[in-house]
Amino acid sequence: MEKIAPPAAAEAAMATALRVLAMDAVEAAQSGHPGMPMGMADVATVLFARHIRLDPSRPDWPDRDRFVLSAGHGSMLLYALHHLVGFEDMTLEELQAFRQLGARTAGHPEYGHARGIEMTTGPLGQGIATAVGMALAERMLNARYGDGLVDHHTFVMAGDGCLMEGISHEAADLAGHLGLGRLIVLWDDNRITIDGPVSLSSSADQCARFAALGWHVARVDGHDPEAIDAALAAAKADPRPSLLACRTVIGQGAPTLAGSHKVHGAPLGAEEIAAARAALDWPHAPFVIPGPVRAAWGRVARRGAAARADWEARLAASPQAAAFEQARAPVDAAALREAICAFKAGISETRPAHATRKASELALGVVNATLPQTVGGSADLTGSNNTRTPDMASVTPGDFSGRYIHYGIREHGMAAAMNGMALHGGLKPYGGTFLAFADYCRPAIRLSALMGVPVAYVMTHDSIGLGEDGPTHQPVETIASLRAMPNLHVYRPADAVETAEAWELAMTSARTPSVLCLSRQSLPTVRRHHEAENLTARGAYVLRESIGPRDLTLIATGSEVSLALDAADLLEAEGLRVAVVSAPCFERFAEEALAYRAEVLGTAPRLGVEAAVRQGWEALIGCEGGFAGMTGFGASGPAPELYRHFGLTPARVAEAARALLTRS
Amino acid sequence: MEKIAPPAAAEAAMATALRVLAMDAVEAAQSGHPGMPMGMADVATVLFARHIRLDPSRPDWPDRDRFVLSAGHGSMLLYALHHLVGFEDMTLEELQAFRQLGARTAGHPEYGHARGIEMTTGPLGQGIATAVGMALAERMLNARYGDGLVDHHTFVMAGDGCLMEGISHEAADLAGHLGLGRLIVLWDDNRITIDGPVSLSSSADQCARFAALGWHVARVDGHDPEAIDAALAAAKADPRPSLLACRTVIGQGAPTLAGSHKVHGAPLGAEEIAAARAALDWPHAPFVIPGPVRAAWGRVARRGAAARADWEARLAASPQAAAFEQARAPVDAAALREAICAFKAGISETRPAHATRKASELALGVVNATLPQTVGGSADLTGSNNTRTPDMASVTPGDFSGRYIHYGIREHGMAAAMNGMALHGGLKPYGGTFLAFADYCRPAIRLSALMGVPVAYVMTHDSIGLGEDGPTHQPVETIASLRAMPNLHVYRPADAVETAEAWELAMTSARTPSVLCLSRQSLPTVRRHHEAENLTARGAYVLRESIGPRDLTLIATGSEVSLALDAADLLEAEGLRVAVVSAPCFERFAEEALAYRAEVLGTAPRLGVEAAVRQGWEALIGCEGGFAGMTGFGASGPAPELYRHFGLTPARVAEAARALLTRS
Repeated sequence: MEKIAPPAAAEAAMATALRVLAMDAVEAAQSGHPGMPMGMADVATVLFARHIRLDPSRPDWPDRDRFVLSAGHGSMLLYALHHLVGFEDMTLEELQAFRQLGARTAGHPEYGHARGIEMTTGPLGQGIATAVGMALAERMLNARYGDGLVDHHTFVMAGDGCLMEGISHEAADLAGHLGLGRLIVLWDDNRITIDGPVSLSSSADQCARFAALGWHVARVDGHDPEAIDAALAAAKADPRPSLLACRTVIGQGAPTLAGSHKVHGAPLGAEEIAAARAALDWPHAPFVIPGPVRAAWGRVARRGAAARADWEARLAASPQAAAFEQARAPVDAAALREAICAFKAGISETRPAHATRKASELALGVVNATLPQTVGGSADLTGSNNTRTPDMASVTPGDFSGRYIHYGIREHGMAAAMNGMALHGGLKPYGGTFLAFADYCRPAIRLSALMGVPVAYVMTHDSIGLGEDGPTHQPVETIASLRAMPNLHVYRPADAVETAEAWELAMTSARTPSVLCLSRQSLPTVRRHHEAENLTARGAYVLRESIGPRDLTLIATGSEVSLALDAADLLEAEGLRVAVVSAPCFERFAEEALAYRAEVLGTAPRLGVEAAVRQGWEALIGCEGGFAGMTGFGASGPAPELYRHFGLTPARVAEAARALLTRS
Repeated sequence: MEKIAPPAAAEAAMATALRVLAMDAVEAAQSGHPGMPMGMADVATVLFARHIRLDPSRPDWPDRDRFVLSAGHGSMLLYALHHLVGFEDMTLEELQAFRQLGARTAGHPEYGHARGIEMTTGPLGQGIATAVGMALAERMLNARYGDGLVDHHTFVMAGDGCLMEGISHEAADLAGHLGLGRLIVLWDDNRITIDGPVSLSSSADQCARFAALGWHVARVDGHDPEAIDAALAAAKADPRPSLLACRTVIGQGAPTLAGSHKVHGAPLGAEEIAAARAALDWPHAPFVIPGPVRAAWGRVARRGAAARADWEARLAASPQAAAFEQARAPVDAAALREAICAFKAGISETRPAHATRKASELALGVVNATLPQTVGGSADLTGSNNTRTPDMASVTPGDFSGRYIHYGIREHGMAAAMNGMALHGGLKPYGGTFLAFADYCRPAIRLSALMGVPVAYVMTHDSIGLGEDGPTHQPVETIASLRAMPNLHVYRPADAVETAEAWELAMTSARTPSVLCLSRQSLPTVRRHHEAENLTARGAYVLRESIGPRDLTLIATGSEVSLALDAADLLEAEGLRVAVVSAPCFERFAEEALAYRAEVLGTAPRLGVEAAVRQGWEALIGCEGGFAGMTGFGASGPAPELYRHFGLTPARVAEAARALLTRS
C-alpha cells in the first residue's frame, strides 16, 4: 500500500488545524471539550496522514478502516478530521454550529448524524468495547472471504475514563484472548481526569495490565510524529491487539491551560485562544483553513479512494462477490418467514411443552439455517440460554470461521461487541445471558437503541420461574425497566410459536434492537392451531375469545399466558365469559391502529398477569384494571412453590378477577 | 494473636465435612452448585481454622473479620462453615432445607437471612467490589479510632466469573490505588466456567493483571494446607491488597466428575456421592458430622470469642468508646431535622435560583456538619455532581482520615463500595455521577435495594436540561427504570428546599436506598414560604392550590415544577382554577393514606409534567390524565432550545392542559 509521509512542517500545520478548529468551535458554542482534541491532534494527524484507509466519498466502503473515538467528549477532533479529509456533509457551517440543535456536530458523536461516524460514543468505555466487536467481525469476515475482500484495521482513541470503566476489562480480556491483532487502541495518556490528576484515583500500570491480557503494548510520545508512526507500524505488524500509550499534554497548544484539568471540558476563552494562535503561529481567523493545509489533508482522501478502487476491482473479480454483498444486505425476510411458518405449523401440530428458552434454541435452528450471517453467543451460559445450535462451531483464537462466540462472563462486553459486529456489517449477532443481568449490560443496550442497531438479546430465566437461584437472579423490575427504554422491542413469548415469531421479528428489524425474555421452566403450547400470520408482530392479540360478549379480559405475557388460560377455565366453569389476550410485545401493540387495539382490549374489565411489577401495564389494562404480579423482590425456592407463594396460580388469578368484577 | 494450627488429619476431616455437606445439601435440594464448595473446601478450612477472627455468638462484633463469598453460587460453603463454626441459627435443619422457600439457606447468600452473612452475593463481581468498600471503611475507621478498636481483614472468595466481570477491574484498580492491604482475595483458580474450560473465553494472566493494579499476588496450591497458610500469612504481612490464586480442582472429592464443568451447577447424583464418600473415607450418613470434627471446628469460634472479649475490654477502656458507638448507631435524626429546618427557612427567605445539584451541595454542608459519619465521593464528577463540601478532605493512599473518595471513572465500583461501607457500619456513604450513568451501576443499586442498605446516590444532570452533551448523557427512561425497582426511593426535588428535605430523608432512611435526581440547570425556589414539615416525606403535596374548586391539577417533579407553575399562571390568566402539585417521590406518595392521596390529586383532570417518559406516571395522573414529557431520546443543543423543541414550555404545557380539558 502506498504510504505517504508528508513533510514534518506540513503535518505540524495539519495538527494545528485540528487544534484550532477544536478550540474555535468550543468557543463558538461556549460549550464542549477542547482538551482531548488539542492533546491528541498530533496522534490523529499521523494516524490519518500516514495510516488510516478511508474514502470520504464512499463512507460505507466495507473494507475501510474503522475509527472509533471512544473518548466521545473529544467530538470536535472527529468533526475537524472529517471536515478536513473531505466528508462532504461535514461543512464549515456544521463546525460553526457545534453542539447546536439540529447540527450534525452534536456534543458527542452520534451514529447516523453524519457520514463516517462509526458509532455513538460518550458513555465511557463503550467505544473500545464496541470496537472489539468491529475487529472481531473483521476477522470473521476475513475467514469467510479472504484477505482480498476483508483486511482492515480498527483504530480506537480512548482516554483514562475509558480504561477505568469496567467494560474496558471485559473488552480487553476478550480481544486479547481472541488475538484481534487488527485492533489498535491509541490511549490518550494525558494523566488528567475531570477531578484532577489521574493519580487522584488510579495507580494502574495500564501497559502492564493490557500485557497481562495478551496485548502488544508500547509507550510513545504523543507529540512526536515519527515515534507515533513507528509505534503504529509496530502495532500493525504485531499479531496481538495493541495498546499504544500516547503520552500527551491535554490541551496542547493552549499556552497557560495546557496540562490542566481546566482545559478538559470548558471553552478556553478569547484571551487564551489568542495566545494559542500566536504560540501556534496560526494567524488565520476562526474556521479559516489555508489552502496548503487543506491540500495536505486532501491526500488522506486520495490515498483512501485509490485503495477503495483497488478493492472494488478485487470484489468485481471475486467469485464470492455475490455472497459478500448478500451478507451485508438486509436479511432474506421472505425466506425466513417461510421457514418460521413451517416451524410454527410443526409446533401447533405436536404441541410440545418446551421452556421458551428451549423453543428459542429450536427456532434458532431455523433462523441460523436460513440466515448465514447470524452469529450466536452467550456470556458463559450457553447451556442455560440455549443460544447455540448444533451447526455452530466456536470462534477460537486463530480460527474465526465459526459462528458462535464464547463471550465469557462479560455481559457488558458481549452487548457492546454485538453492537460493533452489527455496525461493522456482514454479520447479524445475537447473544444470551440471564434476564436479571440485563442490568449488567444496560448501557450497551441503550446504545443499541439510541443508534438503532438491531441486535438481539436472548435473556432467559425471565421471572421467579427460575426458582431456587433466588432474588438476585429473578427479574421483577427488569422487564419494566427495558420497556421504559425508547426504540427497544421487548418480547416475552408464551410458547414455542410466539418464540419463533419473535425471532422472525428480531431478525428482520431494521433499526430497533430486540430483547427476548424467555422462561427457564417448561410451558405448554398455547397456539394450538396454526396461523401463518405472525401474530406477535401485532404486539398483542386475542388468543382465546369468549363465547358471547366478554365479561372479562385476561391479558398475560410469556409464562403467565398458560396461567391465564387455566384461570379462564375456572372462571368459565362459573359461567363467566372470558377472553384471553397474549401480549408478547407492548411496544408493537402501541404502534397498532386504535381500532385494532380497542378490539383486542375489549370493553369488559381487564386483568393483567405477569410475574413482574405492574409499572407499564396501564397501557394494556388501564388504571381501573386488575393486576396479578409481583410487588417486590422474589425468593429462593422451587418455582411452583414460588408461584403459589406470590399468588400466581389459576385459583388466585381467578380470585383477583372475581374481585375486579365485583368492584367494576 | 493466638494462632491454632490443628493437626493435618483434623483439618483434612474438617474440609471433608464441608465437601460432604455441600454435596449432600445440593443432592437433597436437587438443585445447587457443589463444585465450588468442594473445590475451595481446603482453602476455607485453613482460612477459618488458622486465620479468620469471628465470634458466632456475636456475629455483629464490629472488629470481626469480614468474609465475603463473591462466588455466591457456592453458598453451601458459607452455610456449611456457619453451621460448623456454630452460628446458632444455621442449624442442620437449615442445611437440609437448602434452597427451599423460607429457609435461611437460599440459593445464593442473602443478607439478613442468617447471622454472619455479610452481604448478598450471586451477581458476579459484586462481592469483590463490595468488599473493597468494607476494606476501605476499615481503614477509614482505623484512622479515626486506632488499631485498638479497628484492625481487621476482609477476606473474599472469588471465582473466574468475578474476575471476568468488568466491575472487578474497577474494584481492583481502586483497591490497589488506595493500598487496601487488609483486603485478601482468594481466587478459586479452577480453570472452569459454566461453558467449559476458562480457556474458551480468557487467556488472562490474572496475577500479572492484579500486579499491574498495585496488588500483592501469589500462586498457591489450593489443596495444600501449609501452602495456603503461608500464602495467607504473607498476604496479611504485605501492605498491598492481595490476590491469592488458589489452584484448585472444581468438585474436588467427586471421583469421576471433579475437574469438569459438569460439577459446577448440578447435583452429583447418588452414585457419585457414594463413591465420593468412599474416596473421602467418610462413612457417615448425610448431614451427620462426627464429634471430633465438630470439636475441631468449634475451636474457630473459641479463638474468635477470645479476640472479641479482648476487643471489648479495649473498647471499654477507650476514651473514644462513645464516639465509636455513636458512629455505628442510627444517625441523630432530631439534630438533622433541626439543621435542615433552619436551612430551609433560610432558603425560603432568600429564594435563590440554584440548580438542585448546587442546592444539594449546600444541603450537604448541613448534613456533613451534623453527621460526622457521612463519606462523600463521586465517580470523577466532583465539580459537576457538587458532592464535596469545603470541610471534606480527600482520602488518599496512606491517609484515610479524610471524608471524600475520588472513586475515579468507576460508577459500578463506586456503588458497590458504598454498599460495602454501609454494610461495614460506622460510615454513611453517598456518591455521585450523572443520572444517565445510573445504568452503569444499576446491578449494585439493585443490591442496595435488595439488601436494604440505605446508601444515597447523587445523580445530577437529570434530563435534557443538561443541554449540549446530548442524548447519551440525557436520561429520559432512567427515572422510570429506577422507579420500577422495589425498595428504592427516587427523589426529584424541585428546588433547594425539597433538595434539603430529600437529603434529610435519605440520611435517616433505615432500610431503603435513595437516588437524588438533580438538575444541572438553575431553578427558582418554588417553596417560597417556610414550613417546618418535611413535605417531601409525603412524596407529593399541593404546592399551590387553586382559588375555588379546581378545574385542573398540574403535577410535576424537579425542574418541571417551576414550568408547571408558569403554565398555571397562563391558564389562570384565562380564568381557569389550577392547582400545582409537586411530586418529588412517587414511592413515598404511594405509601400515604388514601385520603391524603385523594386530597392531593383532587377530582379535576390531571396533567403530569416531567422531562422523561410517561411510564409510571399513571399512578399520579391516571390513565385519562395528560402528560407533557419525552417520548424518545433527547438531542444535543442548548437546554432552553431543547425544552422548546420537545414541547416543554409554559405555553405548550398550557396548550396540553387546554386539550385535556376539552376532551375531559
